[in-house]
Amino acid sequence: MQHTATPDRTGSGTAASYVPTDRTVPTRAKQRASYDRELVHSILDETYLCHLGFLRDGAPVVLPTLYGRIGERLYVHGSTGSRPLRSAKSADPGLPVCLTVTHVDALVLARSAFHHSINYRSVVVHGNAVTVTDPEERRLALDAIVDQVVPGRSRDSRPADAKELAATAVIRLDLDEVSAKVRTGGPNDEPEDLGLPHWTGIVPLTRGYAEPVPADDLDPAIGIPDYLSAL
Amino acid sequence: MQHTATPDRTGSGTAASYVPTDRTVPTRAKQRASYDRELVHSILDETYLCHLGFLRDGAPVVLPTLYGRIGERLYVHGSTGSRPLRSAKSADPGLPVCLTVTHVDALVLARSAFHHSINYRSVVVHGNAVTVTDPEERRLALDAIVDQVVPGRSRDSRPADAKELAATAVIRLDLDEVSAKVRTGGPNDEPEDLGLPHWTGIVPLTRGYAEPVPADDLDPAIGIPDYLSAL
Repeated sequence: MQHTATPDRTGSGTAASYVPTDRTVPTRAKQRASYDRELVHSILDETYLCHLGFLRDGAPVVLPTLYGRIGERLYVHGSTGSRPLRSAKSADPGLPVCLTVTHVDALVLARSAFHHSINYRSVVVHGNAVTVTDPEERRLALDAIVDQVVPGRSRDSRPADAKELAATAVIRLDLDEVSAKVRTGGPNDEPEDLGLPHWTGIVPLTRGYAEPVPADDLDPAIGIPDYLSAL
Repeated sequence: MQHTATPDRTGSGTAASYVPTDRTVPTRAKQRASYDRELVHSILDETYLCHLGFLRDGAPVVLPTLYGRIGERLYVHGSTGSRPLRSAKSADPGLPVCLTVTHVDALVLARSAFHHSINYRSVVVHGNAVTVTDPEERRLALDAIVDQVVPGRSRDSRPADAKELAATAVIRLDLDEVSAKVRTGGPNDEPEDLGLPHWTGIVPLTRGYAEPVPADDLDPAIGIPDYLSAL
């Protein structure tokens, strides 16, 4: 799974695009693939939940987990006892992972069953996740994971104390071998199907937040903060 | 990764629960794990998008894809040229996969950064995906994948023709080694944090469908079908 090394592939560069590799060029629907850095960031920043794939005893495991992004680095945290985080600690040069983020934007109903689809935006990141040991990087990563869920929230909560930090493992995955895939638009029916009597079009999905529900023991004097109203 | 064989593990049984295995008992948050068959089905049936993990050249890959459920079997389809579907065809006894489905129900904001969480419901299925070759099972599986997205839609679209069927691979994963994981409720703050001046509670998420958008070339005489209005 080699690819050509270039100065733009460092992850710290300002190149507009990631460099495609064998792993990030799809075998089909190539026209949907993109390596645009801004597009990748925008897809990642619209949510906070990824599906993280790794190997356990040689078999694939996919678990949902929170992440945070700082520049060209993604961070995932968990209990120091959790299996992937334990594995990352002992693996050299890190734990091989695949981190995937997907938004579904619309259902696409074609006249033919074959051309049914969904409009989506996804990012797939391949790489080796490494355990973060630097205390300052760990602190920034934990803030980033909280702020990925609710921007601004890390400043309005008690930071982790020494005991909590000791129980928390943080791994880092660099945005290096990355691709986005996007489908937009309506159905692509075959010309000979255009006269069929089936409704065709798209059904856009909606996503949002309901009114925040205060905890039973919250001091009623503490109102809903601006960063929550802004969600 | 052995587990005790029992009559309840056949997948066709009517036992209320799946039998836990080494792979489906979590190392942490054990109280959130469930093997209840109805719960697993309900989580699977609330959506149509999974994240499918498999190995490619020994490294994990996680891709979003549609699925359909028929009883204790999940089906995934794709181009005969796609990598996992090609691999499943040649693998014996099938392609080792992990299929994961996740719903996020609410953001959980604790007073401490450490106790931030999300309320979620997830299902993780481990197993070997096998290529479906029986024509009738393939037909039912393709209908199930369409109906998983929009119940009732398969009857109101043109079924795949011979050419489309030849281009489509279908794999099956039995619901056998399965677990659900569910978090509900509010934040779990430490007693010593209860007096901190931070807002705490949950932010429920909303999901829905916007008004269907007909394709430009749809005959205006064809109205929105009942199964779409019912979404």
